[in-house]
Amino acid sequence: MTLLDRLTALLGPAHVLTGRDCDPYTSEWLGKYHWQPIAVLRPANRDEVAGILRIASETGTPVVPSGGRTGLVGGTEAQGRLMLSLERMNRIREIRPAARIAIVEPGVVLSRLHDAAAEHELHFPLWFGARGSAMIGGALSTNAGGSNVLRYGSTRALCLGLEVVLADGRVLNLMSELHKDNSGYDLKDLFIGAEGTLGVITAAVMKLVPAPRAHATAMLAMSSLDAALALLNRLQADSGGLVEAFEYMPRSYQELLVARRPDLGLPFDRIHDVTILVELGATTPRDCTPGPDGVLPLAALLEGTLGAMMEEGLVTDAVIASSEAQRRALWARREAAAEIGTPISGPMVDTDVCVPLDRVARFLSLAGKRIAALDANAFPHCVAHLGDGNVHFAVFPTRDDPGLIEAMIRAVEDTVQELGGSFSAEHGVGLSKLGSMRRRKDPVALDVMRAIKQALDPGNIMNPGKVIP
Amino acid sequence: MTLLDRLTALLGPAHVLTGRDCDPYTSEWLGKYHWQPIAVLRPANRDEVAGILRIASETGTPVVPSGGRTGLVGGTEAQGRLMLSLERMNRIREIRPAARIAIVEPGVVLSRLHDAAAEHELHFPLWFGARGSAMIGGALSTNAGGSNVLRYGSTRALCLGLEVVLADGRVLNLMSELHKDNSGYDLKDLFIGAEGTLGVITAAVMKLVPAPRAHATAMLAMSSLDAALALLNRLQADSGGLVEAFEYMPRSYQELLVARRPDLGLPFDRIHDVTILVELGATTPRDCTPGPDGVLPLAALLEGTLGAMMEEGLVTDAVIASSEAQRRALWARREAAAEIGTPISGPMVDTDVCVPLDRVARFLSLAGKRIAALDANAFPHCVAHLGDGNVHFAVFPTRDDPGLIEAMIRAVEDTVQELGGSFSAEHGVGLSKLGSMRRRKDPVALDVMRAIKQALDPGNIMNPGKVIP
Repeated sequence: MTLLDRLTALLGPAHVLTGRDCDPYTSEWLGKYHWQPIAVLRPANRDEVAGILRIASETGTPVVPSGGRTGLVGGTEAQGRLMLSLERMNRIREIRPAARIAIVEPGVVLSRLHDAAAEHELHFPLWFGARGSAMIGGALSTNAGGSNVLRYGSTRALCLGLEVVLADGRVLNLMSELHKDNSGYDLKDLFIGAEGTLGVITAAVMKLVPAPRAHATAMLAMSSLDAALALLNRLQADSGGLVEAFEYMPRSYQELLVARRPDLGLPFDRIHDVTILVELGATTPRDCTPGPDGVLPLAALLEGTLGAMMEEGLVTDAVIASSEAQRRALWARREAAAEIGTPISGPMVDTDVCVPLDRVARFLSLAGKRIAALDANAFPHCVAHLGDGNVHFAVFPTRDDPGLIEAMIRAVEDTVQELGGSFSAEHGVGLSKLGSMRRRKDPVALDVMRAIKQALDPGNIMNPGKVIP
Repeated sequence: MTLLDRLTALLGPAHVLTGRDCDPYTSEWLGKYHWQPIAVLRPANRDEVAGILRIASETGTPVVPSGGRTGLVGGTEAQGRLMLSLERMNRIREIRPAARIAIVEPGVVLSRLHDAAAEHELHFPLWFGARGSAMIGGALSTNAGGSNVLRYGSTRALCLGLEVVLADGRVLNLMSELHKDNSGYDLKDLFIGAEGTLGVITAAVMKLVPAPRAHATAMLAMSSLDAALALLNRLQADSGGLVEAFEYMPRSYQELLVARRPDLGLPFDRIHDVTILVELGATTPRDCTPGPDGVLPLAALLEGTLGAMMEEGLVTDAVIASSEAQRRALWARREAAAEIGTPISGPMVDTDVCVPLDRVARFLSLAGKRIAALDANAFPHCVAHLGDGNVHFAVFPTRDDPGLIEAMIRAVEDTVQELGGSFSAEHGVGLSKLGSMRRRKDPVALDVMRAIKQALDPGNIMNPGKVIP
């Protein structure tokens, strides 16, 4: 039997797609990578995944796992490979409110889990623009971040247990629901963030948290990034860490927003250098119960702090959401980032870096100067999860010159490295950052990664060529 | 040159101990394991650690890393091996209050880090009885837990970055200070909890948290464990997760305490079936500012909840600490656990298990019955971090019969497994739980652990014979 015959016998003809049937699976959202797989496989369950990997191992055929394909780094590029789509393994098997856990399959779209948790007054706090398409398996495989990492951590911090099918088809059962479990090496965290290069995640135990019953949300114009950090620290200290999001949009972001999404409007009558979107979440009755004046304690805290900082000249303008609709409107301006952040035409340098919080301003200043020295009219586009030092720093160069683009990437990497940061924060490595891994990652760490990859996938069939240069 | 000559040339004669000079290093606290090492090595820095491991690799000599030797599972047993004591690498290199991190060497004793953090109004929230001797390297290597895991997580959750010397002497630099850093596999978490079998931790970046400025602490008699869980859930919901400790001491614990530490006294006029020590920590000004009645909001919250539950008959007696001295006195009764938890003579079955919170009562009932069926007069001794389902369940059998002891261990393991728990919660595996690993751990997980061990330590010189059966 041919490879495809064996796979068809295993999955049924409806779930082995070839030729044009593969089209929906042959690129990722940004359009930077395109590919033609041998076939797209859509297993229904763990045992079918194991069967696929046994066949792939025996035949030495590379396999690329795929979820919602909302990735940004080419992690699901699959030219001449088998794509293993987890979309049919999409059951929320169980939500146990008392234990605050959800047991899910990898094909569950994030927003479905958001909705399901909400029915129990719980919340799954992994939140980013692509939540309506991104799947939990992909989020685990990239250790996805988003806007609420500040309060709840990245995907890794939200996972208690995993089931993984290894390259040779064996099933690794790490489906713990426990908060303390020291029984040997921490294998779970090895597969989280491995981008499918070590195995296929087929189930997970995810943490849920109490749903915020009220939010205090504001869009702010501030005098500087330092003032913004001072605000963050004050709010965190005064609220006890209830800041859920602290997002930075510079002048260039607002200019792009006006140009490309005029329908969203601007929060202020003019564009400021530093605009911040801040949100606090209230979960306890004492924070959710309005005071005698009808104001929520958390909103009062936010307003009090903003008032004081306006007097000090640190906050120069503010819009506080007074309804859920207003809150959504403020967020729409932030969540348009991905949409407005691609050039209408021409090249783009896209980075996703992290530096210590108090060095974000210095990073932007230094990186900006170095980019300008390379291409005086390049347009830098930036938006940042300022609360955890994660900057999405992109540049639209004025010419499509591979040498220039490479020089820009290195200039950003240099700056990050000088400031003790990382060239990869929350999007993963995939193909896009292989060069950065080669240049910037500790060489011993690369050797250890290679040794582990060789130990777990000796035939190099699991998403080969990704993550490890 | 002989092995010892080479090591002496590297470290100097004062730091290569042999013969009787090794005596302080030849047993662990419980006295269950004794050993005679070839030598005890006391390197001053990372490069000396690397030099030792290069020599050990070349000569195929096994090396056992050692910190404060407060472990409970034989993890530092070193018969006929080199012991590598990290005690001289004990610098707190830096505390950066704004970033809330401490950069430490592995030989830093926990209580020194507690004191150093306190000078900056910060807190290092890893807290257990042995904190005056235990070192951060050992805490990382065992992923130690303790009383405050409920709020702050285990050691793993408190570590941002590591430096590790590998078996062949290469230095792996993972000293990130970032909260988002997805640049390849999560190697850091592989070394945390590996009990020195994959490398030697030579530096770490640890998180600090705002120091609680006030505590609300109480010792409670409760009608049942279910009532205790209801109390925990109410306090967590009302305070927004400010419960720092929720410790359970059953009747048998109190009886042992009276017998062996009568000086500590009893909190109540009689012994109750269910005694709970609960503590909440206040960090925000709004929780630390006394109300018009002079009562802290957090204390008022605790008192209010306790009052309501007393009316419902769920809390039957309560002592609330009204001073730091009273708080310390309540804690002294809990922290005597290790001291009173060893038999005066005779054998002991010691376990450290975890089950889902709502199954702790069922675990104790089932395991108790099964132990009684094996030895009707065996004395079960238990204390639990109830807030995270972690039960230290020990038994003093009436006879020193290896078959009986083995049967008791298996009875506990059976019960844990039936309830979806883990046979190893926070003490590690070492030698003590190798049998449990063999019997209970997913066999594929064991295979993956062996593959990783082989990949990183092909000569099997790093703490061989521990963790992996």
